[in-house]
Amino acid sequence: METDQRLEMLVERARSRRLTVAVAWPADKSTLGAVKRAVENGFINAIMLGCADKVQETMGKAIEEGHVTLLDVETPAEAATKAVEVVNRGEAQLLMKGLVSTDVVLRAVLNKETGLLDPGNVLTHISIGDIPTYNKLLCFGDVAVMPNPNVLQRTAQLRYILDMCRSLGIEEPRVSLVHCSEHVDAKHFPCTIDYVELVKRSREGEFGACIVDGPLDVKTSCCLEAAVTKGIDSPLQGQADALIFPEIESGNAFYKTVTLFAGATIACVVLGARVPLVVSSRGDDEMTKYYSIAAACCAAKKGA
Amino acid sequence: METDQRLEMLVERARSRRLTVAVAWPADKSTLGAVKRAVENGFINAIMLGCADKVQETMGKAIEEGHVTLLDVETPAEAATKAVEVVNRGEAQLLMKGLVSTDVVLRAVLNKETGLLDPGNVLTHISIGDIPTYNKLLCFGDVAVMPNPNVLQRTAQLRYILDMCRSLGIEEPRVSLVHCSEHVDAKHFPCTIDYVELVKRSREGEFGACIVDGPLDVKTSCCLEAAVTKGIDSPLQGQADALIFPEIESGNAFYKTVTLFAGATIACVVLGARVPLVVSSRGDDEMTKYYSIAAACCAAKKGA
Repeated sequence: METDQRLEMLVERARSRRLTVAVAWPADKSTLGAVKRAVENGFINAIMLGCADKVQETMGKAIEEGHVTLLDVETPAEAATKAVEVVNRGEAQLLMKGLVSTDVVLRAVLNKETGLLDPGNVLTHISIGDIPTYNKLLCFGDVAVMPNPNVLQRTAQLRYILDMCRSLGIEEPRVSLVHCSEHVDAKHFPCTIDYVELVKRSREGEFGACIVDGPLDVKTSCCLEAAVTKGIDSPLQGQADALIFPEIESGNAFYKTVTLFAGATIACVVLGARVPLVVSSRGDDEMTKYYSIAAACCAAKKGA
Repeated sequence: METDQRLEMLVERARSRRLTVAVAWPADKSTLGAVKRAVENGFINAIMLGCADKVQETMGKAIEEGHVTLLDVETPAEAATKAVEVVNRGEAQLLMKGLVSTDVVLRAVLNKETGLLDPGNVLTHISIGDIPTYNKLLCFGDVAVMPNPNVLQRTAQLRYILDMCRSLGIEEPRVSLVHCSEHVDAKHFPCTIDYVELVKRSREGEFGACIVDGPLDVKTSCCLEAAVTKGIDSPLQGQADALIFPEIESGNAFYKTVTLFAGATIACVVLGARVPLVVSSRGDDEMTKYYSIAAACCAAKKGA
């Protein structure tokens, strides 16, 4: 199967209903290109905050047809604040950042009075990877937002990644809790104790239909033969749909390695706020941002 | 370039002098096969501790020719202890484990009275990866031994990985100190402060001819284009010869990911003891162990 064909599945699913995205400061080509492509493919409308000249130049036709509207703002920071307002007024069901730093956007999202985070919720970054050498899409996180989660944050992360898998049509997602070995070691690796707890709660049914296992390394999570060689009998059967990494260093190393060395294409969303966020990084190209918009549409709650 | 051809370079270098390896409990096929191949290729002699029947069956000819000798032991643990003795008597310049758990071998190596670790030294695991999508061999660590190094341990790790690169013929090794971003953040990521110190000391010449930079992520370490896109001007120029990971989780994730998803072949050694150790994992095949023996020969001190 071609790499891009598998992420096209996100687009197919996104097409079922047309949502509106608020885009903060769309000054860069890849953001403008990604939004234009998503509008033309019929799965979003867009409210563009700032950079009116560039937007008019790129998508005059979509403006005429009413799929793209402009909101005047002076600065990237104002764009972020206003985008959050637009979402809170119910006019958009997704938020995307353009050429504004992630810190500025997250500050607007996290603002306790005017932001988008309900009390008790946490933000987590979820990637959906199309790795040519794996037999299906692979969700993983956190590579960018949550540095070193505690058990409450891990629980939230598990719920969000299960939501993401289900929104991709996976009825009983297989989630691996990643660690460098399969041994539980409370002294050196406290994450493994969190994992034992999460596996137990998943078996008790707390998270719905799913198979959660760990600690397991990346290889035994995604390759049955590797697990068998090591004598590991995991219910994941080397067929993980999602990997939860112990902390940001390993998640980030995985992300950078599959994109650089294994030819992976990635879509990313940040979940946990009232709406999914598209917070792509500076280096992402147009197609990555396009598929990320589609992933955010998939993740948006059905009632949105 | 074919994958295997690049690790063959280790064999070419190992051939310059024939060293002797002490092999603890060679009960498994891949250890026996790897040692036999290395003996036949003329770069090692072997002292096999235990499993006499299997050794005789596999390499009768090499025994006749005097390249392989047998030492009788009763258990895997005794094999580990005796292998350390053999090394300490100067009869072997390398130590390899067969079907004995890594813990048992390391306990024998770390024994303060009878072991192989000089005071003040630390053990670190170094991998040499032949990743088909990278333009040269890439050393990296630590994926298995050092969980969460302090600055002294990181310094030792840097020295060992520089030694390894130099033993591969790289005159001015380029080493990246890996982190999930290029920002120094003492509060959330203390490793970045260690990195600043190591970069400074490398520029002052403490580690000889080398280029050390960081914090940098995996992608900007190994891809100039990715660095330029992010506006990072690193002297590594996207051409790292070695990656030092902040802790074991990210190192292990990298190792498992390049082998599973990017078709990498890996040779591994543990450095820091009086002699290099070949401490392969259960899942490693014959060729991995064979190349690891060659890597250990390269790493063995010239005077050995």
